[in-house]
Amino acid sequence: MSQETRFVQDIADQEDDFSRWYTDVVLKAELADYSPVRGCMVIRPYGFALWENMRDALDSRIKATGHVNAYFPLFIPESLLKKEAEHVEGFNPEVAWVTAAGDEDLEERLAIRPTSEVMILTMYSKWVQSWRDLPLLINQWANVVRWEKRTHMFLRTTEFLWQEGHTAHRTEQEAQEEVLRMLEVYRDFVETELAIPLVLGRKSESEKFAGAQATYTIEAMMGDGRALQAGTSHGFGQHFAEAFNISFLDMDGERRNAWTTSWGMTTRLIGALIMTHGDASGLILPPRVAPHQVVVIPIFRKDDEEERVREAINEITQRLAGQVRLHVDWSEHTPGWKFNEWELRGVPIRLEIGPRDVAAGQATVVRRDTREKQAVPLGELATRLPALLDDIQHALFERALAFRESRTHQISSIDELAAQIEQERGFFWAVWCGSAACETAVKTRTGATLRCLPLEGGDGVGPCLVCGQSGGKTAIFARAY
Amino acid sequence: MSQETRFVQDIADQEDDFSRWYTDVVLKAELADYSPVRGCMVIRPYGFALWENMRDALDSRIKATGHVNAYFPLFIPESLLKKEAEHVEGFNPEVAWVTAAGDEDLEERLAIRPTSEVMILTMYSKWVQSWRDLPLLINQWANVVRWEKRTHMFLRTTEFLWQEGHTAHRTEQEAQEEVLRMLEVYRDFVETELAIPLVLGRKSESEKFAGAQATYTIEAMMGDGRALQAGTSHGFGQHFAEAFNISFLDMDGERRNAWTTSWGMTTRLIGALIMTHGDASGLILPPRVAPHQVVVIPIFRKDDEEERVREAINEITQRLAGQVRLHVDWSEHTPGWKFNEWELRGVPIRLEIGPRDVAAGQATVVRRDTREKQAVPLGELATRLPALLDDIQHALFERALAFRESRTHQISSIDELAAQIEQERGFFWAVWCGSAACETAVKTRTGATLRCLPLEGGDGVGPCLVCGQSGGKTAIFARAY
Repeated sequence: MSQETRFVQDIADQEDDFSRWYTDVVLKAELADYSPVRGCMVIRPYGFALWENMRDALDSRIKATGHVNAYFPLFIPESLLKKEAEHVEGFNPEVAWVTAAGDEDLEERLAIRPTSEVMILTMYSKWVQSWRDLPLLINQWANVVRWEKRTHMFLRTTEFLWQEGHTAHRTEQEAQEEVLRMLEVYRDFVETELAIPLVLGRKSESEKFAGAQATYTIEAMMGDGRALQAGTSHGFGQHFAEAFNISFLDMDGERRNAWTTSWGMTTRLIGALIMTHGDASGLILPPRVAPHQVVVIPIFRKDDEEERVREAINEITQRLAGQVRLHVDWSEHTPGWKFNEWELRGVPIRLEIGPRDVAAGQATVVRRDTREKQAVPLGELATRLPALLDDIQHALFERALAFRESRTHQISSIDELAAQIEQERGFFWAVWCGSAACETAVKTRTGATLRCLPLEGGDGVGPCLVCGQSGGKTAIFARAY
Repeated sequence: MSQETRFVQDIADQEDDFSRWYTDVVLKAELADYSPVRGCMVIRPYGFALWENMRDALDSRIKATGHVNAYFPLFIPESLLKKEAEHVEGFNPEVAWVTAAGDEDLEERLAIRPTSEVMILTMYSKWVQSWRDLPLLINQWANVVRWEKRTHMFLRTTEFLWQEGHTAHRTEQEAQEEVLRMLEVYRDFVETELAIPLVLGRKSESEKFAGAQATYTIEAMMGDGRALQAGTSHGFGQHFAEAFNISFLDMDGERRNAWTTSWGMTTRLIGALIMTHGDASGLILPPRVAPHQVVVIPIFRKDDEEERVREAINEITQRLAGQVRLHVDWSEHTPGWKFNEWELRGVPIRLEIGPRDVAAGQATVVRRDTREKQAVPLGELATRLPALLDDIQHALFERALAFRESRTHQISSIDELAAQIEQERGFFWAVWCGSAACETAVKTRTGATLRCLPLEGGDGVGPCLVCGQSGGKTAIFARAY
């Protein structure tokens, strides 16, 4: 739509139709748009600026823990993809195949990477000879393709952006430490930067990554009570190292296989952000990753008013340069239109300046999350705004945490789960015997999947929610994205 | 190779076999490696850290000139690619086609983007309605695929990384200003950050981008006297806007087509960097983009010596933190091995510290470019090293410029060109009548292509180097990568 004819339009009601609310917000906040390719979306500048902030915050954590970035090919020859049986079985239905180039058919089909284990580990087998070459700690930021039947903006798209870390270690213990270290890096990143509270846990056999020995996950609760897997960290044991021949001469002169791990996080997190914090008026962005932290709305009617307001705003932007990410909306729309627009787009703080504000040497500051309004002297903006941004960041996390707790229930039987989940979605903690049969029974009857075996908080005491057997473990069930 | 068995090995002689020297340096400096996919390479961590520094320096310039980043799909439906005839004709032989996903054949083939004009302009036709929506100034960092018959690390690979800017404007003048603005951004980036001197010019009809009205280029001279096109900026007129229906309601109420441009720069620049500055010992990296600006080599024999050296180095790294990118090589190799290794990998400054240095309160500082050695008091490192890095950056540019000038010749006939280019490669300035026939004649006889019609420095006075006609323009001919 042109800026001329485009007004803030109603978005669907959250309570009424959360899914339509979500799509409305994505499109109207101009985070993304549909593309001419089935299942692929365009990440628009506002959405991409958000992703850049997220990426930079995670990238610095990945580097601070000793990892380095590299880049591996988009294509994986079919024979290579088939080297590890479980892995190829898991991904085969989702693989896009290049079969021709120019006017010629290729001799061997090339997969577009759905993930890069087989490519990266093939290179590792070349680079690793001695224990001195270990650990190898490499991360890649890349696009990957998984052919999905049903797609949903950010949450599940045919092509998406992600980072994938792939590491090789000398010992099992080192590898296990790495898997949990990166889970913790993810937790810190998501909770600190995105203000999304997480449950950390291990996936069940049926939910783990194709070929992994163990998959760990961070699970978040969305605004409709459904779970979203926000990132995963996998230990492969020596399984992939055997398939890809990553062996090394150890300190004692013995040749051994390495222990490998991988961990990934994707643009799906943008979806998590929207669905965790958004409200009836649209998006609410956590200040630490918001493209604009403060939007300034000039208010004036006459020319001489405009001049005074413009002067005050120039002074403010100079004072705040390098302190907060500030955007001044000088467009021709009315202030009311702009208020709605920037609320919809989730800017954490709105700063209004009119002639009366200028005369009083102040600005009107409005929080997006609480809509609380206050007059702040211009001279205090440089200290008050950063503090207010911190407050908002903190409040968003606390609000999301309180919501999750209000929707988290301890249940003791599948009947209880089935009854409660029909009333309201949420996280349901229960004891599970560990059998795939009981896990499937829950899924079939309630639509809830086993999100994880939480690392903290469950004692596993009591009978299995399905079969009643004792000696199980605590598991969290939820309907999920 | 394992670190255990890996020693600095001889690299081919530059004079003798420049091409093998180049490949040796790429592989042995661990910038890149061959992959299991034909024509695709792996950018290793050292090479990727270099690319990250280059990318960040260019990205900040792209943003400072008012552009924003976004992300568009990897796939382009065949029907969409065929919408603009000249464009598809130019790229068709190089396109990789996805024809199947999972077990199913696709109804329509999908091209892997060789460039994103058609995808991005399709979105623009949706986003642009009024003159108020213009200009649209979007850049994308992405991977693209062009099926090349012959590939060469960094210089020509099937998949490569690049940025592609795509803009739409209200008027021809604005679009033309954009094309030249971005050419200037490229010049500033390449000359300032990479220390590579450039000639700016316009491409001839035969060398311009498929579908462009005019293509501008920055041309660099490599260490063997061959030319390398280091970046291009294209004006499309209203040509693509017509094909993709990017029209807008103008100020006067008339509906008009937009004027579009695009401009791109790729990982090939890493190749340019290597071939501009490298010498017989390997790589020389300009300080502004070097992953490590200073490498510290500890020198000691006895345990008590190690302790003193370690203390001094800890003090240095603390003092220099945030000032220079410093790497301490604590590996088990001999100092001599490390000297060679880090020379090969092109680190601008080597800092040696042994017990005698510690006793004298100094370090030995060695420049990579001149090998000049000096003792610097430890207390002065924080001021002397940054200044020295600036000196090196400047000296590299000056050296490359002097080399280019020594290999630049004014010639007046194709005979002269043929004779001189056999002796020594370089840039040959000549007058050209403007005909494709004369351009082809030069190429056929001498192997030199028309690099550009330089924006500055040529007056076009004299007869055409081939047909002798007057009234031509100044053109630069060279054998090129």
